[in-house]
Amino acid sequence: METFFSFLEKRVDDCSSLLCVGLDPHVSDLGEPTAKAARDFCLHLVKATAPYAAAFKPNAAFFEVFGPEGWTALKQVIEAVGEESARMGSLIPVILDAKRGDIASTAEAYAKSAFEHLGAHAITLNPYLGRDSIEPFIGNPEKGAFLLCKTSNAGSMDLQNLLVLPVGAESSAPLYIYVAHLARQWNANGNIGLVVGATHPQVMSNIRAAAPDLWFLSPGVGAQGGDLESALRSGLRKDGKGMLLNVSRSIARAAEGPGLAAAELRDEIVNVKHKLDY
Amino acid sequence: METFFSFLEKRVDDCSSLLCVGLDPHVSDLGEPTAKAARDFCLHLVKATAPYAAAFKPNAAFFEVFGPEGWTALKQVIEAVGEESARMGSLIPVILDAKRGDIASTAEAYAKSAFEHLGAHAITLNPYLGRDSIEPFIGNPEKGAFLLCKTSNAGSMDLQNLLVLPVGAESSAPLYIYVAHLARQWNANGNIGLVVGATHPQVMSNIRAAAPDLWFLSPGVGAQGGDLESALRSGLRKDGKGMLLNVSRSIARAAEGPGLAAAELRDEIVNVKHKLDY
Repeated sequence: METFFSFLEKRVDDCSSLLCVGLDPHVSDLGEPTAKAARDFCLHLVKATAPYAAAFKPNAAFFEVFGPEGWTALKQVIEAVGEESARMGSLIPVILDAKRGDIASTAEAYAKSAFEHLGAHAITLNPYLGRDSIEPFIGNPEKGAFLLCKTSNAGSMDLQNLLVLPVGAESSAPLYIYVAHLARQWNANGNIGLVVGATHPQVMSNIRAAAPDLWFLSPGVGAQGGDLESALRSGLRKDGKGMLLNVSRSIARAAEGPGLAAAELRDEIVNVKHKLDY
Repeated sequence: METFFSFLEKRVDDCSSLLCVGLDPHVSDLGEPTAKAARDFCLHLVKATAPYAAAFKPNAAFFEVFGPEGWTALKQVIEAVGEESARMGSLIPVILDAKRGDIASTAEAYAKSAFEHLGAHAITLNPYLGRDSIEPFIGNPEKGAFLLCKTSNAGSMDLQNLLVLPVGAESSAPLYIYVAHLARQWNANGNIGLVVGATHPQVMSNIRAAAPDLWFLSPGVGAQGGDLESALRSGLRKDGKGMLLNVSRSIARAAEGPGLAAAELRDEIVNVKHKLDY
């Protein structure tokens, strides 16, 4: 069965990279605060970094803030990734970072927006509303969903680190571990991954132990201060895959330009993997 | 200090209503699947129900699904509420049901989208990312935020009902109760409310006990099967306010038309309140 993750693994092999390039057109990075500037910023990033990108991750918020023109720009950016993929003969999956989560009939509309209208291949989702809020996104195995598990921000301690006592369980565990277990339970179509920040390596090791097979989408290396080697040591699966390192600002704002920065990061990941005997 | 909730309470007094009219243009309710049909569906609802509406709640998903044209339609619908408000001389607040939640710099873009670009007065937010994901929405007291606490769907059992053991606490409590406590802690500006489904009256009573002062936004009465009297008995504050009953389908699809359905619901709420000695 082809799934989102089989496409992703093919791409990972094609480009020898675990790098996910974040497309976050912060207003502060744009010459002028317009949808067109946001689009051009991302098109430049896509063109420069495509050879080294295992995936691209546009964040919906930075487009939504420009209203209708922003949504047009977002669609154009996703289309541009498709054009680069066609040019290279290797599909680069697009993960829409939208962190959506709503009751089932509403979630269906979000799924249609992400997968049909925008043409994204996967989406990030918030698990707080439970299984029926996730199902509309995972019916088609070729589309993927990354559930927020342990995020990279300080506020992730507030709920995600709470100790929970599931009915019938013998001991308590942090909520993020419970979410990892739920993700495995819900993964009948093999198209669920987890968002696991790279800012806490020990936490990442624990989530890897709880979900040995799932792909992680991991922000936090680079501008947010996470260390690449500890992240890879804690998060890689036994097959040396299973982890997308998302980098946004450190690539977009690199003095040497985003293409060179992405190439260097790709190579650094390869080197660290060798060092760790993968 | 004027806050979102002082505006809301003024409106509640003006129209003697606790009814929040949900603006959910499901494709199945539209003559054709277009943004224009979604807009016209909502404009009709707004015009017919404005006299009885304490607030309106458009759900972003049903507009987002139409791409850029959908966002234009959403803005026009919010503007139409403003026009009805001006005509009646009584501001009807608009709560954007978007259930957003992202790290702080991204949340800022969502807040700008909801409050500045679209002109909504409040938004629904998912608390899973913690305090710093909420803060960008609550800096201005005149804008409000309803945190998802206990939702009305079946999947709300999966995470929200988990028993949690906060550090230093003597006993465990469901996660939704913990979220209610957090909302009170974070409410320095007096502009945080909670989303509490009306489908489980006992749960609603428990959340009311945990947060005696907060406003609830409560879906689930009507099409979702919640009973009006038990909801009001469980959720009203001592002052007979503190609770917005959101109704979408039962009004939009009413055989007698949405205006009459909204008027009847408003009156039913008034009657039940009398019966309950408010």
